[in-house]
Amino acid sequence: MSQRFAVIMAGGSGTRFWPASRAAHPKQFLSLSGGDETLLQASVRRAAAVVGATQVLVVTSARHAETTRAQLPALPAENLLLEPQGRNTAPCIAWAIAHARRRDPQAVLAVLPADPHVGDEQAFEAVLQRALGVAEGGALVTVGITPNRPETGYGYVQVGEQCGDGARRVVAFVEKPDAERAEHFFASGDYLWNSGMFFFSAASMLTAIEAHLPQLARWVVECDEAARRGEEEGFVHDSYASLPSVSIDYGVMERADDILVVPGSFGWDDVGSWSAAWQLSQRDGDDNGCGGGEMLALDASGSYVSAPEGKLVALLGVEDLVVVDTPDALLVMPRERAQQVRRVLDELKARDKTRFL
Amino acid sequence: MSQRFAVIMAGGSGTRFWPASRAAHPKQFLSLSGGDETLLQASVRRAAAVVGATQVLVVTSARHAETTRAQLPALPAENLLLEPQGRNTAPCIAWAIAHARRRDPQAVLAVLPADPHVGDEQAFEAVLQRALGVAEGGALVTVGITPNRPETGYGYVQVGEQCGDGARRVVAFVEKPDAERAEHFFASGDYLWNSGMFFFSAASMLTAIEAHLPQLARWVVECDEAARRGEEEGFVHDSYASLPSVSIDYGVMERADDILVVPGSFGWDDVGSWSAAWQLSQRDGDDNGCGGGEMLALDASGSYVSAPEGKLVALLGVEDLVVVDTPDALLVMPRERAQQVRRVLDELKARDKTRFL
Repeated sequence: MSQRFAVIMAGGSGTRFWPASRAAHPKQFLSLSGGDETLLQASVRRAAAVVGATQVLVVTSARHAETTRAQLPALPAENLLLEPQGRNTAPCIAWAIAHARRRDPQAVLAVLPADPHVGDEQAFEAVLQRALGVAEGGALVTVGITPNRPETGYGYVQVGEQCGDGARRVVAFVEKPDAERAEHFFASGDYLWNSGMFFFSAASMLTAIEAHLPQLARWVVECDEAARRGEEEGFVHDSYASLPSVSIDYGVMERADDILVVPGSFGWDDVGSWSAAWQLSQRDGDDNGCGGGEMLALDASGSYVSAPEGKLVALLGVEDLVVVDTPDALLVMPRERAQQVRRVLDELKARDKTRFL
Repeated sequence: MSQRFAVIMAGGSGTRFWPASRAAHPKQFLSLSGGDETLLQASVRRAAAVVGATQVLVVTSARHAETTRAQLPALPAENLLLEPQGRNTAPCIAWAIAHARRRDPQAVLAVLPADPHVGDEQAFEAVLQRALGVAEGGALVTVGITPNRPETGYGYVQVGEQCGDGARRVVAFVEKPDAERAEHFFASGDYLWNSGMFFFSAASMLTAIEAHLPQLARWVVECDEAARRGEEEGFVHDSYASLPSVSIDYGVMERADDILVVPGSFGWDDVGSWSAAWQLSQRDGDDNGCGGGEMLALDASGSYVSAPEGKLVALLGVEDLVVVDTPDALLVMPRERAQQVRRVLDELKARDKTRFL
């Protein structure tokens, strides 16, 4: 039987959770819900439940090495792949495939983002097992989330005919729609949310990379040769920046034929903004949620607070606000502005206040 | 010529500026406008300009001794009177009178709160000189502020006939009015804002205290006797708690005849709430004011920020908010709720979170 691997992509440098997330401390290292477990820790725990703890690879930026090791003390050292630069997801996945294939040429991989929220972990694990099983047959597979609302914040997967094992053929990957198209997608039942999770055998994906990103395929071969000489680290350090910065979605999946999708429904959310963090937080009777610190809400409703441990945040008479406090920076905005946090970062750059980024 | 003294009453423990003001660090020790000078420092500086630096007495609580000395390093040690307990203003003023009279039996005193804002300092000093001159003649004198709006947040002084030196007779002291009465007061021209400043000779006020608060008058005599024995500190420590806790307004001024008022107009504000602090702050083109920290306002208006030095406070898309940050507690409320800060303190007490008070 082939070995199964899970690859957690933890290289993100998201800006949507400023000021809690910073260039040096992005979203995956945070706990947004108020619990002790960070998004990365939860992702690794869930993946380990599916493939086993020794089979989880984590790919992140070299600059996050220390934080990642601190958050994942049980991760075997050889399972941590440190990218010298971020080059989007295709190079990151190709490198992880090379690693997995050295352990087992028949390796089958699940590639998972480090930062989604999963509400129903049992259902999640069952869907991953099914998707890995389908991938074992040689197909490139994704998981699509059954929508429960006409969401405009996610990409979609248009699905076609059934093809056994609960999988369906992918007709097309579709960008985030406007409200009207989202309504249509939701009503038709032929569209699933794109979860950003991919499943494949090492051999199948390398064949697809060879077809669509030949430079990256050659790099994998050279990387394996360097590894045999014991020189992988230096090789990656010297060559990684020359790789095409392209996503696996755009670079391979959207160009390949015969992509399958396994539908799933497990309380998934990509937690794309402070508003999503509020949605996922435990809320009081007035719909106020707290993702950290001590909230005191008087005549306040629909608001979200995140603050360092022990810090008191008193809300008096406010509605639908987001208040995120950190030792050196504080953000206050209406919840409906949560998608605009980037504007604050742009303004900080423009004013040369980069110490707050 | 009689010596002139200024008595700065700095014993307040105001709760309206929480979380910047705390039980251990009340409003007079803060700079609310964003400058370096605290309200207490400004009050002492202005008083010294009128009576001379050695003639300024500061009365505060023994618990604030350290903070007061740190903020007023040039204050002569014997000019700092430390109350073992707060007993409102009448005992505090009586004790200050005893001190001044020992230096000069003909002493004339100006009693000033430690925490108002004064916009026009030259006009302020001129009015104080005039009021001291009137008090030298033997009257009990207050200064009334010429209203520039029908304010409901201040008490008023109803004025009567002219009696020379620019002073008028006081008809009555009036509590904070409702909006309708405030409009009437403003339109009539016969009402001034009660500034809480009092001017009198030691002899005149002691006579009035003897008439209306005889227990306090006896205490002054005993205090002088103890001082002659070199035992004032112990005497005050042992006896202060037994004094009536009453304001000089209620205990003496409102019961005495022949009170005079000198009208003044010098950009006076008692800075009674965060909303007043906003009003007095330097504001940007969108009416956002900053009383500390670094404010970054994007699509924000009418808001006020106060934060520790160097802390960034980003406001995105908010209106008319007050955001006050301190190392351990943060308050967010609409500006119009500024009078309700006390509710937060009451709730903290009810939840036994007294460390934040």
